[in-house]
Formats: sequence, structure tokens, C-alpha cells
Amino acid sequence: MHSPEISNLIQLIGKLPGLGQRSGRRIALHMLNNKEIILKNILDALTQAYENIKICSVCGNLDTTVPCTICASTRREKKILCIVESVADLWAIERSKTYAGYYHVLGGLLSAIDGVGPDRLHLHNLHQRIEQGVDEVILSLSATVDGQTTLHFVANHLKNFPNLKITTLSHGVPVGGELDYLDDGTLTVAFSGRRTIAA
Amino acid sequence: MHSPEISNLIQLIGKLPGLGQRSGRRIALHMLNNKEIILKNILDALTQAYENIKICSVCGNLDTTVPCTICASTRREKKILCIVESVADLWAIERSKTYAGYYHVLGGLLSAIDGVGPDRLHLHNLHQRIEQGVDEVILSLSATVDGQTTLHFVANHLKNFPNLKITTLSHGVPVGGELDYLDDGTLTVAFSGRRTIAA
Repeated sequence: MHSPEISNLIQLIGKLPGLGQRSGRRIALHMLNNKEIILKNILDALTQAYENIKICSVCGNLDTTVPCTICASTRREKKILCIVESVADLWAIERSKTYAGYYHVLGGLLSAIDGVGPDRLHLHNLHQRIEQGVDEVILSLSATVDGQTTLHFVANHLKNFPNLKITTLSHGVPVGGELDYLDDGTLTVAFSGRRTIAA
Repeated sequence: MHSPEISNLIQLIGKLPGLGQRSGRRIALHMLNNKEIILKNILDALTQAYENIKICSVCGNLDTTVPCTICASTRREKKILCIVESVADLWAIERSKTYAGYYHVLGGLLSAIDGVGPDRLHLHNLHQRIEQGVDEVILSLSATVDGQTTLHFVANHLKNFPNLKITTLSHGVPVGGELDYLDDGTLTVAFSGRRTIAA
């Protein structure tokens, strides 16, 4: 019913995360109905991204330069390295403006079900980076089975550095979270990790 | 924090219908993480669409050819013309496989609030198309205030054709719809339009 060009576009958009056939159709039509403004701008932005965005060979971040802006910065705390699963996690931490050290993107998590082994993680230059004067490695990985498996694997991978501090994020009640909506696991962790309030 | 290329891409994607900043970021990252497969394919599909998709000068549909596949078809019912608001509506009717005549896309609805007047509707060749032997015009417009205003405007616009049958879609309970979730307006219309069941 549609021309193959339109069908193909709808199908590709519909496969993007969070979208489906219906939203793909809606977005494709919206772009086609505003060809010279919206479609053209997105086309140019994607062309720019396709041609210029590279994976940083040091940390695994996405940027136009290699090394990326974060790795190339001299203003950050040199002695801390934050290990994250993905660039999405790196961006989330950067948005929170809570951390000023450097990053190391693993590019995935170990997963028995999905068949992801240690060779698929970006680990080859991690030892070398730590040898360049890192004091602390923060393992900022998801509190899921795969996340915690990977956390223990990476911690074990780094046991040859006797003076290296290896830390992980605290678990507990999310800020703004209501207790009666929390799952049992989080409540248990939050109770066992309770702390004294300074009077 | 991101390079301008990435920020721009996220912003443009986030402005598409149904999406926002968050889903824009997710989709942009998904494409950048799979540059050679997903980003490249979408880039090619958009380039194809940008270069080849045109608005049909006869009916207003989007296609690679002018006139479009529907207008160029000789297998359709020549004497019926279905007037729709948008290409999205045309596609929806085509998907239902319920109609085999030709279409005429208005490209919008009259709207006092949005300041859309009759000059913004694609009406210039409507008279001419009807003169070429159309017996019935189906006004398939939304059951909204703007839709019904436009319906009456177009019906009035066509009053010079004394033998032309002007019809509109029936209103009532949607197929699969549960009565207790229906709004009062639809229920009222469904009651006043009730029909006898053949025994």
C-alpha cells in the first residue's frame, strides 16, 4: 500500500527502542509532511553524527574527538575512575553533576543468558589506566543480577592492585521514593544499611 | 556535556511526536551504539525518502510517483471520492481494506483557534475532479468540532453539484467497545441511530 521507501522508513523507525509500528508510522508521516524542515534537519543531524561521532579508545565514551572531551580534560580528578556499563550510564552520572573523575565504559554486562563473556567487555586497557595513578575505582553498575555478577568479576580482575580502593554505589531508598511502593529487596538493604543521624 | 552533534540529534529526535528528551536520548544512543547497522540504515532510508517522496498533485497523498499509485490505478471505483483530513487518515482507511475508490486529502481541518481558513485546505482541484464523473463524495472527517465544521464547509462547497451524493461516516459504538467506557455523546448518537435487526 505504501511505496517501499515509506514502508522501509516506518519499519526502521518502529524498531527503535520504545517505539513500534504505530509510532513509527506517526513519526515517519510527521517527517514526510514537514520534509524541508523536520526531515531535512534530522537527516543532516544523522549525517553529522554518522560521520563525526567516534568511540573514545581510552574510556569508550562517544564523542567527536578521540580521546573524548572527558578523557582530554585536565581539570578532572585524576585519581578516581568510575566504571559504568554503558554510555547512557555515563551521561546519567554526568547529568547529576556529582562526579568529577574519569570514566571507563565496559560496553555491556556479563550475562549467562545472553552469552556475554568477559572477552566482550572493554577491559583490555583497564589495568594500564589504573597503573597511571588511579587510587580508587568506583564500580557504578546496575543493582541487577548481571550488574552484580559483573561487579564481582571486575573487582576480582583488579585484585592485583593491593593499594587500589574498590568501591560501589550505596543501595537504599531512592530520594523522593515512598516506602510503601518500594520492593522488599530495597527495603531490606535500606534497613541493614541504616545509619545514625547526628543529633 | 555532549558534543554539539549529539545534543542536536537528541533535541531533534525528542521533538518528534510522542517522544521527549528522555526517549530522544535513548534512541540517539541506540543509533550511535549501532552506527554501521541501525544509524546507517535509517540514514539511507531518510535520504531515500527525502529525495523520492513527493506530494501527489491530484489527491495530496505521499508517494514516489506523481500521480500516486492510488490515483494512477485503473482498478479502483472511479465514481467514489473519499475526502480525508490527512495522509495518516488515508493510510488508516487503506489498511482497513474497506474502500476501493479514490481519495482527496485536505491537508488539514478548518480551525478558528489555530487560524486555519479555507485557503489552507487543498480544495483547488476538487470541483474539477468531481466533474470528471464522481457520483459520491464520502466526507471521512474526524468527529471533532473542527472535523464537523470542515465537513459542513466542504458539503456547502459542493452544493453546486445537484446530482452528487454527499455522505459521511456513521457514528456509534466502536467495534469491540464496552458500553460502560463510552462517553455520553457516543451513546446518545448510537441510541438515536439505532437500527432494526433482521429477525
